[in-house]
Amino acid sequence: MSDAQEKHSRAGEIPPRFDDAFRARFEDLLRWRRDVRRFRPERVDAALLDHFLALANLAPSVGLSQPWRFVWVEDAERRKAVRANFAAANAEALAQYSQDRAAAYAKLKLAGLEEAPHHLALFAEPEPAQGHRLGRGTMPETVPYSAAMAAHTLWLAARGHGVGVGWVSILDPAALTACLDVPADWLFIGYFCVGYPAGEHETPELERHGWERRRAEPAQALRR
Amino acid sequence: MSDAQEKHSRAGEIPPRFDDAFRARFEDLLRWRRDVRRFRPERVDAALLDHFLALANLAPSVGLSQPWRFVWVEDAERRKAVRANFAAANAEALAQYSQDRAAAYAKLKLAGLEEAPHHLALFAEPEPAQGHRLGRGTMPETVPYSAAMAAHTLWLAARGHGVGVGWVSILDPAALTACLDVPADWLFIGYFCVGYPAGEHETPELERHGWERRRAEPAQALRR
Repeated sequence: MSDAQEKHSRAGEIPPRFDDAFRARFEDLLRWRRDVRRFRPERVDAALLDHFLALANLAPSVGLSQPWRFVWVEDAERRKAVRANFAAANAEALAQYSQDRAAAYAKLKLAGLEEAPHHLALFAEPEPAQGHRLGRGTMPETVPYSAAMAAHTLWLAARGHGVGVGWVSILDPAALTACLDVPADWLFIGYFCVGYPAGEHETPELERHGWERRRAEPAQALRR
Repeated sequence: MSDAQEKHSRAGEIPPRFDDAFRARFEDLLRWRRDVRRFRPERVDAALLDHFLALANLAPSVGLSQPWRFVWVEDAERRKAVRANFAAANAEALAQYSQDRAAAYAKLKLAGLEEAPHHLALFAEPEPAQGHRLGRGTMPETVPYSAAMAAHTLWLAARGHGVGVGWVSILDPAALTACLDVPADWLFIGYFCVGYPAGEHETPELERHGWERRRAEPAQALRR
């Protein structure tokens, strides 16, 4: 860094101090984020939704490429196509299970596509000009990973405002991309239902309904 | 949900209230997270590192599958192999640029592999038993996306404690996986340098060094 740059960055940048109270609250945020599938009908203020997208823009991205591309899905016909896409993929998923698991799967509510007032689709631009290709030469998958982290940022920011987000992945990505009329080379990352949740829970929905339980212990942290 | 389940979840679950002060601090956290490449040599307390992994375990995951697999890389020979892997991939990346861009690339510090006291590799188990395949039938890539969100969770948690994380992606994934002697089917997600940062900045390193600038405006939020 040049001296001038160093002076500039020192002058403009006073790091925040994060204290125990903040950290405890942040851990509450992580613990109480939820994959929300049950929504109240009220719309979220448009300025607040914009704010969530602005915060998502602070997510880490490979080479500072910010490759995430968000699309609000508002058109009734397109939403209908998305619901049909989900219904088909979900029926196919159900057919993969047998007996008790199939019965359990059939009872799960896996998306809030009917109720959620806002629908947000997320894509990644696979070859973004921004970033000048830095960091993705051997691992182009870091581009979609960046988009996933932007989704996670938005998710946490929304939860901090009491707004719920549910990630829908039981979809045919090619049909979804075609239905939304976005550039054909964009990579579909996920579809998000957004709105105020009907009920708040610390326990994940899949755990409350007996499908799977979250493991509290740290994941296998091998040492090598 | 059965009545018994509903009663249980109501009894045990009192949602936290997030206020303006918390939200402002959380936004500082997002703004001051950094991809850190310059580290001080002091080690981070082992219990704190474990705590970061435990928090990463709260990340969203497809079907509650928690497919992230963390590996602390401690062995000197393995670290040497990782540095050689990076050096080769970085030389190859440099060769892709010409003239001014090549000169600029050559000046960037893109990893803290020499200085960082802790090295953490992240993999995803591509076919986890946990989660019973829910949610990934049409989009198996949601498994690595879950792992990327776990990395992001750890990153934010660490920053809240003043600990820096740098994501290294300029690596040959196959060689990296082989060198760490993990199950061959694990998918390499990223390699993280962890330690106390030498200097704190609100502005990303790539921006301070003139490679790319972060766009503050929300990403193209199309409407469909």
